[in-house]
Amino acid sequence: MADTSRTWTAALLVIGDEILSGRTQDKNVAQVAAWLNVQGIRLKEVRVVADDEAAIVEAVNILRARNDYLFTTGGIGPTHDDITVDAIAAALGVGVVIHPEARAILDGYYATRGGLNEARLRMARVPEGADLIPNRMSGAPGIKIGNIFIMAGVPAITAGMLDALTGTLEGGLPVLSVTVGCWVPESEIADLLRKTEKDHEGVAIGSYPFFREGRVGANFVIRATDPDLLETCAAALSAGLVATGREAVPGGI
Amino acid sequence: MADTSRTWTAALLVIGDEILSGRTQDKNVAQVAAWLNVQGIRLKEVRVVADDEAAIVEAVNILRARNDYLFTTGGIGPTHDDITVDAIAAALGVGVVIHPEARAILDGYYATRGGLNEARLRMARVPEGADLIPNRMSGAPGIKIGNIFIMAGVPAITAGMLDALTGTLEGGLPVLSVTVGCWVPESEIADLLRKTEKDHEGVAIGSYPFFREGRVGANFVIRATDPDLLETCAAALSAGLVATGREAVPGGI
Repeated sequence: MADTSRTWTAALLVIGDEILSGRTQDKNVAQVAAWLNVQGIRLKEVRVVADDEAAIVEAVNILRARNDYLFTTGGIGPTHDDITVDAIAAALGVGVVIHPEARAILDGYYATRGGLNEARLRMARVPEGADLIPNRMSGAPGIKIGNIFIMAGVPAITAGMLDALTGTLEGGLPVLSVTVGCWVPESEIADLLRKTEKDHEGVAIGSYPFFREGRVGANFVIRATDPDLLETCAAALSAGLVATGREAVPGGI
Repeated sequence: MADTSRTWTAALLVIGDEILSGRTQDKNVAQVAAWLNVQGIRLKEVRVVADDEAAIVEAVNILRARNDYLFTTGGIGPTHDDITVDAIAAALGVGVVIHPEARAILDGYYATRGGLNEARLRMARVPEGADLIPNRMSGAPGIKIGNIFIMAGVPAITAGMLDALTGTLEGGLPVLSVTVGCWVPESEIADLLRKTEKDHEGVAIGSYPFFREGRVGANFVIRATDPDLLETCAAALSAGLVATGREAVPGGI
């Protein structure tokens, strides 16, 4: 259901003190971004905020208004620091209710795991009017309300929720990419990069330098939605690198 | 030079299409966060935006106004997609100039590396009025202007710039943390966590569940600036876990 008449955008809000304290290395930005590309949706901006209601409310209301979709990760567990549901309900100006289906899911999940207690029941709480996102990893579901998708913070659980959403969101054409690598300081071929991008409208070229094996190199990532344009541009860039006496490495280094 | 009369805050702005496309896994959030803790400064919020001037300008002006410090990573290289300096100058309403000391540094660095060309000279451009941040890894320096610290995107270079800034920023007391691990579903001891946090004012307890070796466990991270309070709280939490028949693992699992 690709609607190519416009660009579809999403924002991601990562919620959690553990990311801002440096204790936990976030992995959800990269996986949500990669998944969105395949859905034909561009990840336009990311914010990371603490487990703080005012901060969550502010970010949710700005990001949901200016993007087609808003995804959140983190803060939907059973403990006192999990305040995402309450904060998003506050942002939307709705109450928080126990979702009967979520309660049934948790009842089943915890039947052999010590039963559903008060803390676990917290994970059945949703902003009023919300639907559920299946969780194939552990009991507690994600939540969908309006254009907001509320997901877990644990990356493996987030991955399962994304998988459950695959193909259900309206988007445009997927962004494709081709990488060309070269053992060259990017500063020596900056003009070639600029000219190649300019010569191929609809293409963006990113330059990502690295130091490896005591040598300087860079990968040039060409992005476009049109596969033919992408190939033409990659061929032009490779030819340009070869013309300067260097080797272009298809697929990158 | 710890000023404990208030909380010192910083924001981090990560600039780069490669993060939003999912191609590159960001590592700067965690390292900047950990470094800030040691300086007695709290990382309050993070944003990730594309190599897009309007997006950078908006984020810079909001974040620098409401935090003591703003750090940026990414977009200060020699290629056409490196627009951070121009965007920050635009945000500040100042021009862009060649910094003579930066030019001299680059001249020296590239003397044995093919010489200073036009692309490389781009890395000597700074917003008017800026100072430099030493780069111990490669030639191009970082930039300091007002309360903004403009750093590289390559994590190893960012690390060197942070190291150069160590001890130069005014901050408060470092936030200390102690971790207590337990093989327990966090949902079974949620009340204990809430009560322990409430009983120890000035302490925040985060609960980070995991699935490992086929078992469910969680690490509880206690944060405070007062080391005595931290120890008292960790002892209380450990005793509480033991009272429920479980083992508390000092340092976490």
